[in-house]
Amino acid sequence: MRKVTTLGLLGTGVIGGGWAARALHFGIDVIAADVKPEMEEWIRGAVANAEPALSRLTSAPLPPKGKLSFTTDLREMAQRADFIQENIPEQLPLKQRMLAEVSRHAAADVIIASSTSGLTPTDLQRDMVAPERFCVAHPFNPVYLLPLVELVGGEKTAQSTIDASAKFFKYIGMHPLHVRREVPGHLTDRLQEALWREILHLVNDGVATTGELDESIIYGPGLRWAAMGTNLIYHLAGGESGMRHMLAQFGPCLKWPWTKLEAPELTDALIDRMVEGTQAQAAGRSIRELERLRDDYLVAIQQVLRQYNIGAGSTLRALEERLHQDATRTQAAQPATGGKPLRLMDTVVRSEWVDYNRHMSDFRYGQVFGDAIDAIFRQAGVDETYRASGRMYYTVENHIRHLGEAKAGESLYVTAQVLAVDDKRLHVFQSMHRGRDDKQIATAEQMYLHVDSAAAKATTVDPQVRAKFDAILSAQAGLPKPPEAGRAVGRAQQ
Amino acid sequence: MRKVTTLGLLGTGVIGGGWAARALHFGIDVIAADVKPEMEEWIRGAVANAEPALSRLTSAPLPPKGKLSFTTDLREMAQRADFIQENIPEQLPLKQRMLAEVSRHAAADVIIASSTSGLTPTDLQRDMVAPERFCVAHPFNPVYLLPLVELVGGEKTAQSTIDASAKFFKYIGMHPLHVRREVPGHLTDRLQEALWREILHLVNDGVATTGELDESIIYGPGLRWAAMGTNLIYHLAGGESGMRHMLAQFGPCLKWPWTKLEAPELTDALIDRMVEGTQAQAAGRSIRELERLRDDYLVAIQQVLRQYNIGAGSTLRALEERLHQDATRTQAAQPATGGKPLRLMDTVVRSEWVDYNRHMSDFRYGQVFGDAIDAIFRQAGVDETYRASGRMYYTVENHIRHLGEAKAGESLYVTAQVLAVDDKRLHVFQSMHRGRDDKQIATAEQMYLHVDSAAAKATTVDPQVRAKFDAILSAQAGLPKPPEAGRAVGRAQQ
Repeated sequence: MRKVTTLGLLGTGVIGGGWAARALHFGIDVIAADVKPEMEEWIRGAVANAEPALSRLTSAPLPPKGKLSFTTDLREMAQRADFIQENIPEQLPLKQRMLAEVSRHAAADVIIASSTSGLTPTDLQRDMVAPERFCVAHPFNPVYLLPLVELVGGEKTAQSTIDASAKFFKYIGMHPLHVRREVPGHLTDRLQEALWREILHLVNDGVATTGELDESIIYGPGLRWAAMGTNLIYHLAGGESGMRHMLAQFGPCLKWPWTKLEAPELTDALIDRMVEGTQAQAAGRSIRELERLRDDYLVAIQQVLRQYNIGAGSTLRALEERLHQDATRTQAAQPATGGKPLRLMDTVVRSEWVDYNRHMSDFRYGQVFGDAIDAIFRQAGVDETYRASGRMYYTVENHIRHLGEAKAGESLYVTAQVLAVDDKRLHVFQSMHRGRDDKQIATAEQMYLHVDSAAAKATTVDPQVRAKFDAILSAQAGLPKPPEAGRAVGRAQQ
Repeated sequence: MRKVTTLGLLGTGVIGGGWAARALHFGIDVIAADVKPEMEEWIRGAVANAEPALSRLTSAPLPPKGKLSFTTDLREMAQRADFIQENIPEQLPLKQRMLAEVSRHAAADVIIASSTSGLTPTDLQRDMVAPERFCVAHPFNPVYLLPLVELVGGEKTAQSTIDASAKFFKYIGMHPLHVRREVPGHLTDRLQEALWREILHLVNDGVATTGELDESIIYGPGLRWAAMGTNLIYHLAGGESGMRHMLAQFGPCLKWPWTKLEAPELTDALIDRMVEGTQAQAAGRSIRELERLRDDYLVAIQQVLRQYNIGAGSTLRALEERLHQDATRTQAAQPATGGKPLRLMDTVVRSEWVDYNRHMSDFRYGQVFGDAIDAIFRQAGVDETYRASGRMYYTVENHIRHLGEAKAGESLYVTAQVLAVDDKRLHVFQSMHRGRDDKQIATAEQMYLHVDSAAAKATTVDPQVRAKFDAILSAQAGLPKPPEAGRAVGRAQQ
């Protein structure tokens, strides 16, 4: 098959727009064909809308973006494209007619693929010229972000068509999944549809609202499904003997009315297939090992959702708010710190903080020092409420020295010494230590400026906050100035 | 209801162990009861196994951990606990008998909850003393990480029991979902079970393997389900008129054989419920706004999975590997850089990089500078293969000056100047700029040391790599030394 430098689109709805955005982003030219000329503006808008998210998918170097052109002439598109993707409405006779027509204008080595959700390729390729170069390539919304594309061949499809399509879709960042047997809905939509129809029953029967049903997924199984499917997850739930134990334990539930969908008979042959399948997925990894992987991504995804204050992330935010309040209350009840650096953070190196050296990445030291400073700020009264007044501290400089490493799972703590404070500036020295041996692994010397963020200029700190920092400064007056403070990069200390 | 300081567990399997780990972590004492004394060791092991992941869930300050005790005497547990959670096998007569017994020993203001996946509370509370303090509280594996707990009351359950239970579960970081009507399997397991039974059919019919079926979820809908359920996702797929349009368009598919589960009739009443439900979920947010939120978390989750090289993250890694190779090939074909700082990174500020100031967080500047240095290293031949030889550059110092802000979505680029290089050290100065106005928003002065990572000491760099850095150094020899280089924190530049 030919090298794809131009993707032709037949039909330009949400799916067509998604294909265009993805292909252009990875350097493929796109020619979109639609009978309605007003769709040109529409597809350009769709591409522009996709760009902000798509541009953040990877920071790897990209080739120059592809060029988008539009035509109302199907023949022009078919003659200029190296690969054609059809995205017209889900009506079999319409698709058959249009696919046949496009196949008459496109060279025989141009693959023609259909985005159909549920129609089968044997039906679709029926009237085509050179039907062996046809397959279903079913993507998921948003096409420009989700990697999945189901590839399904019909009776007349050549294996080389599937292989070449898979190669092209990988080139534009996707995960081609070869569906080996034609069934209505392919694989993904069959599973989604079963869940969807059960939802409709539950709403219809007045059991729950759409919102409650969505919650029932996103705070639980949905988090797991981001990286492990039901089969592997159930394999893990079966303990050391995995799927076989799970089926023995929960097999009887298949007779229970837990859904309106009747299960197949759990024959020995079916059990064997399920067990062999999940063994292959485990690929020699123990249950313990897979559990660790599952736990790692579950923790990490919740951190991401916390940033967006959505789903499980909003639960985590609410929890942390309460924990901070409780901690502030506990601290207030304790006597003031004596002449020691403040101990600010006790944390653990997360697996996703570790780089190719298997040590914590440089910038994560900055993150931990930043969290530690937030803890000082909170103690001094610079919190959400204070910031809501438009005043806050901005970091002006941060000089980090790296003295040792930390591995995933190791505990860390940070101590801090206030070096100087005035009405606008705060000068702090922090020291990071490994919990297991108290070894100092980094220092940070930082200068903060108190600003009015609307005016974007320095402003005087609230006297109460200043008083808190002064109190820390005088409590620490007896501490020696750290020898590392006041040095430039590469200057040996005294 | 009483304040919960001790959680009693009846039964100590995977679920009991998960409850123990979660409660202890958030400062609640746990007394676990099991007839088998060997389960004491088991549950201590389960708690220890949960700890590495649980300790990374939040870095907010935690109260002192709770204490775990174990007894084979159900009565002792019932008398010491403030809240009792039952986790014994899913057999109705066994659960009824044990719940009745525990209810005779526990004070009437102690809530007793069952972890049952599918049995209904009215059946379970039948023989209890003070059945009004009973409810179902169904968690999900791993209980110590997933926030969802379904709360279901039976005919005799008091509303105050649901309310107090919800309060307790929130305290230990969970999201209580009140299931208002008793149905077998509650809500979540009905939806999971419909999907699961469809999987069994597809494997049974020889359509796909367990691995293919898992892929059909994790590269597509599973990513979406981490934060938005099917209903809201379909609302988004409906375009500007949301769920109503979606049902009009895909309603006919409900008659198609896309799953073995028959759908209910799509009556006007059902359509109205679906539309009203999703309108409530949208809570006034436009489709565009929700799309942006969806896109943001889809991008961010893929970054996390990339770190773990799992699912969509492994697809992204493979893509980036190919992009880097292509870029290296393109660079090699271009003439050498003249006397200019190297332009290294063109990137975009991700929404999750932004902090409460609505500007890029300090430590993310470090991340971008770090990615830029990786690009220099790659150009000089310090790549995966080189690192596999056990040699690499470690950061020794990094002095960042912040000069301006960047907001989410803004483009950034970094330029670099090599200040000095010898056989062991590399001294670099970087400058970060906003794409829209070229404004310099940060500088970084960095010192790297070339090390043998096994021996953990400095070692001589490969001559070919040294030659590459020397070439950059001499190409840049005409550039003035940046005035900011060589300064300590807080020292004004010349």
